Amino acid sequence: MNKIWQKATDNDSLVDQFTVGQDRELDLSLARFDVLGSMAHITMLESVGLLTSSELRTLLKGLKEILIEIDNGHFTIDDGVEDVHSQVEGLLTERLGDVGKKIHSGRSRNDQVLVDLKLYFRHEIHEIVAGTELLFNQLIALADQHKEKLMPGYTHLQLAMPSSFGLWFGAYAESLIDDLEVMLAAWKVSNKNPLGSAAGYGSSFPLNRKMTTELLGFENLNYNVVYAQMGRGKTERILAQGMASIAQTLAKMSMDVTLFLNQHFSFISFPDHLTTGSSIMPHKKNPDVFELIRARCNQLSALPNNIQMVTQNLPSGYHRDLQQIKEMLFSAIGELKSCLKMMHYMLENITVKDNLLADDKFKYLFSVEEVNRLVLSGVPFREAYVQVGLAIENGEFNPERKVDHSHEGSIGNLCLPEIQNAFMQVKKGFGFEKVEEALVKLADGDR
Amino acid sequence: MNKIWQKATDNDSLVDQFTVGQDRELDLSLARFDVLGSMAHITMLESVGLLTSSELRTLLKGLKEILIEIDNGHFTIDDGVEDVHSQVEGLLTERLGDVGKKIHSGRSRNDQVLVDLKLYFRHEIHEIVAGTELLFNQLIALADQHKEKLMPGYTHLQLAMPSSFGLWFGAYAESLIDDLEVMLAAWKVSNKNPLGSAAGYGSSFPLNRKMTTELLGFENLNYNVVYAQMGRGKTERILAQGMASIAQTLAKMSMDVTLFLNQHFSFISFPDHLTTGSSIMPHKKNPDVFELIRARCNQLSALPNNIQMVTQNLPSGYHRDLQQIKEMLFSAIGELKSCLKMMHYMLENITVKDNLLADDKFKYLFSVEEVNRLVLSGVPFREAYVQVGLAIENGEFNPERKVDHSHEGSIGNLCLPEIQNAFMQVKKGFGFEKVEEALVKLADGDR
Amino acid sequence: MNKIWQKATDNDSLVDQFTVGQDRELDLSLARFDVLGSMAHITMLESVGLLTSSELRTLLKGLKEILIEIDNGHFTIDDGVEDVHSQVEGLLTERLGDVGKKIHSGRSRNDQVLVDLKLYFRHEIHEIVAGTELLFNQLIALADQHKEKLMPGYTHLQLAMPSSFGLWFGAYAESLIDDLEVMLAAWKVSNKNPLGSAAGYGSSFPLNRKMTTELLGFENLNYNVVYAQMGRGKTERILAQGMASIAQTLAKMSMDVTLFLNQHFSFISFPDHLTTGSSIMPHKKNPDVFELIRARCNQLSALPNNIQMVTQNLPSGYHRDLQQIKEMLFSAIGELKSCLKMMHYMLENITVKDNLLADDKFKYLFSVEEVNRLVLSGVPFREAYVQVGLAIENGEFNPERKVDHSHEGSIGNLCLPEIQNAFMQVKKGFGFEKVEEALVKLADGDR
Amino acid sequence: MNKIWQKATDNDSLVDQFTVGQDRELDLSLARFDVLGSMAHITMLESVGLLTSSELRTLLKGLKEILIEIDNGHFTIDDGVEDVHSQVEGLLTERLGDVGKKIHSGRSRNDQVLVDLKLYFRHEIHEIVAGTELLFNQLIALADQHKEKLMPGYTHLQLAMPSSFGLWFGAYAESLIDDLEVMLAAWKVSNKNPLGSAAGYGSSFPLNRKMTTELLGFENLNYNVVYAQMGRGKTERILAQGMASIAQTLAKMSMDVTLFLNQHFSFISFPDHLTTGSSIMPHKKNPDVFELIRARCNQLSALPNNIQMVTQNLPSGYHRDLQQIKEMLFSAIGELKSCLKMMHYMLENITVKDNLLADDKFKYLFSVEEVNRLVLSGVPFREAYVQVGLAIENGEFNPERKVDHSHEGSIGNLCLPEIQNAFMQVKKGFGFEKVEEALVKLADGDR
Repeated sequence: MNKIWQKATDNDSLVDQFTVGQDRELDLSLARFDVLGSMAHITMLESVGLLTSSELRTLLKGLKEILIEIDNGHFTIDDGVEDVHSQVEGLLTERLGDVGKKIHSGRSRNDQVLVDLKLYFRHEIHEIVAGTELLFNQLIALADQHKEKLMPGYTHLQLAMPSSFGLWFGAYAESLIDDLEVMLAAWKVSNKNPLGSAAGYGSSFPLNRKMTTELLGFENLNYNVVYAQMGRGKTERILAQGMASIAQTLAKMSMDVTLFLNQHFSFISFPDHLTTGSSIMPHKKNPDVFELIRARCNQLSALPNNIQMVTQNLPSGYHRDLQQIKEMLFSAIGELKSCLKMMHYMLENITVKDNLLADDKFKYLFSVEEVNRLVLSGVPFREAYVQVGLAIENGEFNPERKVDHSHEGSIGNLCLPEIQNAFMQVKKGFGFEKVEEALVKLADGDR
Repeated sequence: MNKIWQKATDNDSLVDQFTVGQDRELDLSLARFDVLGSMAHITMLESVGLLTSSELRTLLKGLKEILIEIDNGHFTIDDGVEDVHSQVEGLLTERLGDVGKKIHSGRSRNDQVLVDLKLYFRHEIHEIVAGTELLFNQLIALADQHKEKLMPGYTHLQLAMPSSFGLWFGAYAESLIDDLEVMLAAWKVSNKNPLGSAAGYGSSFPLNRKMTTELLGFENLNYNVVYAQMGRGKTERILAQGMASIAQTLAKMSMDVTLFLNQHFSFISFPDHLTTGSSIMPHKKNPDVFELIRARCNQLSALPNNIQMVTQNLPSGYHRDLQQIKEMLFSAIGELKSCLKMMHYMLENITVKDNLLADDKFKYLFSVEEVNRLVLSGVPFREAYVQVGLAIENGEFNPERKVDHSHEGSIGNLCLPEIQNAFMQVKKGFGFEKVEEALVKLADGDR
Repeated sequence: MNKIWQKATDNDSLVDQFTVGQDRELDLSLARFDVLGSMAHITMLESVGLLTSSELRTLLKGLKEILIEIDNGHFTIDDGVEDVHSQVEGLLTERLGDVGKKIHSGRSRNDQVLVDLKLYFRHEIHEIVAGTELLFNQLIALADQHKEKLMPGYTHLQLAMPSSFGLWFGAYAESLIDDLEVMLAAWKVSNKNPLGSAAGYGSSFPLNRKMTTELLGFENLNYNVVYAQMGRGKTERILAQGMASIAQTLAKMSMDVTLFLNQHFSFISFPDHLTTGSSIMPHKKNPDVFELIRARCNQLSALPNNIQMVTQNLPSGYHRDLQQIKEMLFSAIGELKSCLKMMHYMLENITVKDNLLADDKFKYLFSVEEVNRLVLSGVPFREAYVQVGLAIENGEFNPERKVDHSHEGSIGNLCLPEIQNAFMQVKKGFGFEKVEEALVKLADGDR
Repeated sequence: MNKIWQKATDNDSLVDQFTVGQDRELDLSLARFDVLGSMAHITMLESVGLLTSSELRTLLKGLKEILIEIDNGHFTIDDGVEDVHSQVEGLLTERLGDVGKKIHSGRSRNDQVLVDLKLYFRHEIHEIVAGTELLFNQLIALADQHKEKLMPGYTHLQLAMPSSFGLWFGAYAESLIDDLEVMLAAWKVSNKNPLGSAAGYGSSFPLNRKMTTELLGFENLNYNVVYAQMGRGKTERILAQGMASIAQTLAKMSMDVTLFLNQHFSFISFPDHLTTGSSIMPHKKNPDVFELIRARCNQLSALPNNIQMVTQNLPSGYHRDLQQIKEMLFSAIGELKSCLKMMHYMLENITVKDNLLADDKFKYLFSVEEVNRLVLSGVPFREAYVQVGLAIENGEFNPERKVDHSHEGSIGNLCLPEIQNAFMQVKKGFGFEKVEEALVKLADGDR
């Protein structure tokens, strides 16, 4: 199989090696979506008379076969074949003869890559959202389980006011909702069909782009063909922002965990087999997993900036630079999924300390509570404030170690069902089912 | 007026100067929203019995007065007053006596800043979206106006295929739609009420947070009080992403413009008074405005990364570091609005060259067109390809300089109404009217 | 005074406002250096016969007058004057007549700005290094003062081994040495003369660039005139890297400080007037100054990336985008100097806790010490390890709370003189004196 | 072989997989340096009486054997072995018995990794500088070869003044000198010995750190043991800055190349087998190699920011997060070396167009030349300016297409020997020979 852009003069092997880069490995992730994109494309070609019904049937059968091979893990990209698109077209031609080449009619390598990427991004967003939902539900459950357990709340990293583990777990759950809003933007941007934009300037073939849009379950088209191409790099950056947002929630929680595991805090603990230590340093329970979640998620935070750096100041139109983004993004997607999984795994094993605030060092946490209690019982604020201040000064401050917070989102009223409802509202916005249905129908040839 | 956190020991003036930073100037942008936040807060306080009706009336009247001063440009922050919150509270107390201090009951400086920022962000997002819409409509109009004018399309910065000015303008219009999706995420994250979260750990007062949510026109609450505080820095980062996305569309278009103004391209021009030149270098029309739009928008692209850098690895709970983000973000908001305005102003004066592709150097742009034309007339692809290749090789390639693209989003079918419709769909998601109505009602005391 | 690039057609005022931006304020920092650059330039012009001796004398006198006005704070940029270069030229022409315009002969606005910037950067690097040296000396003194005070050392934020305040202060001192290496690179890149590169393509005048190099105290030329221009943006990025490196040392130390001030650590303290607190929360000593040093220094860490974002993918040759960098860099320079000063001020007031490790919770810190002690007394390692492990397991581990480290750079042998020597070695590489001498000579007209 | 930090309770395999990450592959790059570090360490241990001479001889022989295996490509890290340090220690123990474990006496995994990394960085800096020198020499030769060939110079991407290919190539050569200054800072920071810092808090063993410093050819020590550990992440960031600086020179040149290859410029060309094209688009010569150099080098520009993101706001002391940086940096080093090589390879094949400026569209480039020519012949500037302006206005401007620039660094006086000398000056600052000698001597056991 030859490279599509091959000219009479053969390309240099040094050049080949440099330009192909890691594309062959990365493209394996795209194989399934390349075949689906082709199935939609040829179905449309037949409908506008650019393929015969019989050609379509033959090609669909051939593609279905390859799809099954992919799903069974039997698909590879042969040595010397440049990318997944060439491999699929090559296999078809090998098996079906020249008709195999017709899957490329009316499109260019550029819009083929674009549609593969968008289908892949949708799939990965779905997986990431699913992983996020698992973690969200776990955090809600932990918040509920530990809602009675008070802990110190800090401002300026100084002991400030009473907080609770219910609040702490619940905060990270709610954080994921806002992260999902960013991911939803990425989904909306990804869920538009670029197929038919050819090399970024459209085609003189009478393509029916609405039809491929529907077949592939896209919500809409990237209408303007120049914009369809311009979306490359930009879609990736927006997806990276969504990923970075989730990653930041994990990283921040990991920072808290490493702090709370420090011996001066000792608020939480994990079983020995999940930390690393030393028999002569029994005090050490190194939270390596959380440190690496933090590091990898912090690295993810830099991804949108990295992608921007590569695309910055490129004029409109395709540039080969865009290929580089695949490498940056694909591995990051894997990292995020693995961090979500590990965070979930670790939290399954978390132990939370009881009666933390009983210790005398925490008593001043309750001074504001005490002032407020007096105010609510009718003492003017200024007087209550002076009264508590004097008690503290005279060493006579012995507050009750309890809080009575009742408003929405406070220690005594975590609003977990409301938070769950808010999560579901955002999740509903994705509409994963509709997309899945379309792809299943397309793969089944059920039209 | 004293600083709220003042202790017996006076703070050092060097420390004061360093910690206040630019806060006093920046806070002027928040004044209107600080007053509105207080109006909602005290209305709620009265409803739960923490203020009398008469106190509420007095305070609302005083705040309304200050609101009018702000709107008339008569509001300043006095020397020696730390921030806008102290100024407002100080003015009230000066004018109304001790009751003025009651606007602070049941909240902390932290949630007061949080709600001010969210109200301010909503306002600025509204303005940015309005500016974006103006530009969008202009680009759509330009696309329509110039839809017949062909231009070269490039890939790899190499002449590739025919494109058109209709496509070019339209592409940037459509780009703004995806940018708005990111901005919508920022809006959704901003449009949640943090008031009542106090210092990030809630309060023992029986606050009715749903009531302030409604009064301030928020779509929902930041329920969890720890998360309400954790949203600071994060909200700003997500807003910065939305801003950066719009900025990148402006920057990329500016890059195209500087290229197209280069004498070797000369596709477009602007009146002399909008470029800079020299009487002995008549060839020079320096596009300073576009270079500065590009530079400022590229700087904006770095903003999310900057904000991340400041908040990275801070454990949960308030840190003074968050103050620094105001400075970074507020000026960037002004820059973006001014870039949107200047882009619009410049495009009002753009001239597009006619008959660009008549030049012989552009004839090979039509080779793919020619192959496709043959294919559509029945010649097998491979044969058509060879035929055109030979004609070119023999110097006999003289294509018609026209294209006949009819599919959605192509030169002959720009789908401008569909693109306009897509823009309106996203815009509708913001629901600015509902928010405006609530604020007007609140300011009018119309309950 | 008119703009130099003015054409017949007047520029638009909207355009003017947008393009000038903050340049007029920023340019005040350059005034001194603009005058010095002109003094060197005209001295050279006279030497190659492009000015008469009498013109030179007149112009030097006029420039000297302006220099004095600048030094006395009597220099401003008039309304309607675009920048510092126009102001200086305008003042000269106003005072001396048409000869004033001759200071611009044989150069362009581009190399004038370039040389101003390089002179300014040298000056600011000198100031930053001076501030760094003050802090370095203070840290060395603190290390020496507190060298006997042990503190816990952490790995993975877990209690690990004994450390000391001598080590802690000394580490940040030594950190500044490596920071200075980066700053030295910035200095070397800045300390090359771009004057004579004109608009980036040189000049047909017989300029003597070696002469201006010497007059301005530069170590060498930017030889290639295209590179001289290409250095803009790049010089700034490298300078920003040097600044970011110092900033990171301050930020990291501030992070440590906020942690060590946390009540669970309580290793250090500051007088009340340098922290912020509350009379009813006596436990709170908010380290606002350190939080803001951290935030501002972390923001500085993003500066190299910001500058890169603006210059990324610009082809060679001047672009107006480069103007934007002034705004980004100039304010950052001010921030860094103020952070250096505040860190020094705060550390003058630090108190370090004695006998920290006496507390029982720290006893396991000494387990490795104990194993090593046994090994050094002849017990095989494996046996020593088991022996200590068993003692710990049986609750019989009662180590002496002392360490006996003697190797270079350890608790008992801080190598402060060696570290001071290393600092001086790097500092010597700058050669500030030579530069200062040249400028004094030039300003005095002492040739 | 077991993990060194293994406890009774076995670690979870999921945790293992997550924490090991790509370390085993990355560590292969460190193998040579790990062995050399151990050779220096044990030589020192013997000198202070912690090993017998016979043990030392045995161990050195065993390590030498492993070194040869590494150099012959016969070294691998076995499945189940965590990292290179365990593999080396394991092999020694397998071959030599328990004495093998003694190479770890008096150090910790932390300072072992630190010294390996520093030795590896030195090696890679040497390779990068060598690659940079090759490219530098090539650019100087190209500048010399094409010094007579004029080309247009642009400002604001507008035709401005005459330039030359001599200037263009020479500019990128000189750019590499400044890049090397940043790399020199990275070298100086890397060329300090951290060995002996143990886990970051030193050791009670009487280590002779000066001796290992000398044996490993380091210029100095990281004295302070806390700083030695703190240098991790920071050294990498500074190295990344040096790499990014070189990368930016390559990226900018690539941007120029893609522009100059554009058909409207057509200043340069490359043989067909080094570009990609299409037989029906004979106008297309896609510069994929330069686009990928640009993209990869632009990605490298983001590396310092990425590293910063991971280390930001971590308190002092080791954190597992630092492991993540290996992955980020090691692959980037490979990328940079491959980009240097490809740039060199491509430039070996560049063709530069002759007589570019003969075309009439370039005549206004000479207007400033013409004014200057008149001025130099005695016409007052203002008059000359008006004269040329009028000639242009009346269409009578027909300048000679030549320039007569003679000053340093201009078209007629490229100063290539001076630039070469400046390069050599910076290169000399590294002192690679001394380092190489030390390592050869150490590896040979020649003491």
